[in-house]
Amino acid sequence: MTFQLAGPLASRGNVPLGDRCGIDRTMQLVGNRTAMLLLREAFYGVTRFDQLVKRVGVTEAVASQRLRELVSAGVLEKQPYREPGQRTRHEYVLTDAGHALVPLLLGMLDWGERYVPYGNRRHTEAVHADCDSPVHAALRCDAGHDVTEDELVITSYAK
Amino acid sequence: MTFQLAGPLASRGNVPLGDRCGIDRTMQLVGNRTAMLLLREAFYGVTRFDQLVKRVGVTEAVASQRLRELVSAGVLEKQPYREPGQRTRHEYVLTDAGHALVPLLLGMLDWGERYVPYGNRRHTEAVHADCDSPVHAALRCDAGHDVTEDELVITSYAK
Repeated sequence: MTFQLAGPLASRGNVPLGDRCGIDRTMQLVGNRTAMLLLREAFYGVTRFDQLVKRVGVTEAVASQRLRELVSAGVLEKQPYREPGQRTRHEYVLTDAGHALVPLLLGMLDWGERYVPYGNRRHTEAVHADCDSPVHAALRCDAGHDVTEDELVITSYAK
Repeated sequence: MTFQLAGPLASRGNVPLGDRCGIDRTMQLVGNRTAMLLLREAFYGVTRFDQLVKRVGVTEAVASQRLRELVSAGVLEKQPYREPGQRTRHEYVLTDAGHALVPLLLGMLDWGERYVPYGNRRHTEAVHADCDSPVHAALRCDAGHDVTEDELVITSYAK
């Protein structure tokens, strides 16, 4: 059971896809552990540098570098804020492109809880606020169907 | 608009989650570019070492190392095969845990196509074989509802 391939992708031979592959472009931009943990904290509502550093558990230098990359990738945005008597600082908020990473983050959380258990019980669970049922990342088509792996056709338009 | 937090996660303070976070555990196991590209090829139906090396575009040494990690992470399985007159070789096939990464891989493909365009048009698209509609990774609850980001409650059971 694998994907169905169509277009040039189906007869590609032993040629690397390189940057033509969206998975590859995504991994190049946000595909490292610290980036994902910074995004996790952004989804958990944390915006300030000091808090991000502590909650992700990296050095300030590493956090700075990764945050710069995430801003330049267009998934986080720097916004100025100022507390009374303090100089202007910046906080980091998710852009639309950042919010669009939700299925990815939830997919990782869900997969990690299921296949890489921590201790002997489920540590974290995502549920639907309206009905309390567990939430998973799933494949959905624009016509509203749930899609299984073998019903998925990957089409490419150029070699 | 961010996730709703419940349990100890809601009042966590500035403490790193470390290995208690499923996102972190997932990234530690499969969160590098070469691993994801090898998994992509597995979903595209490629099982043999020589082909994997060429289609991902890495050296044999790097591919070997990453494949070993993916086997030890339980997402790929080595299976022996033998062609007439040849010695026994191994091919790499997805396990159940590997197949469960579909929403993640599709989420990356979809996000990359949408937010990191290659050239000036869509290069690759995922569609539903039954109805030809575009497929996306989405949040679904077990009661069958589509879930939006602000309807998502992340609950943790232990500090």
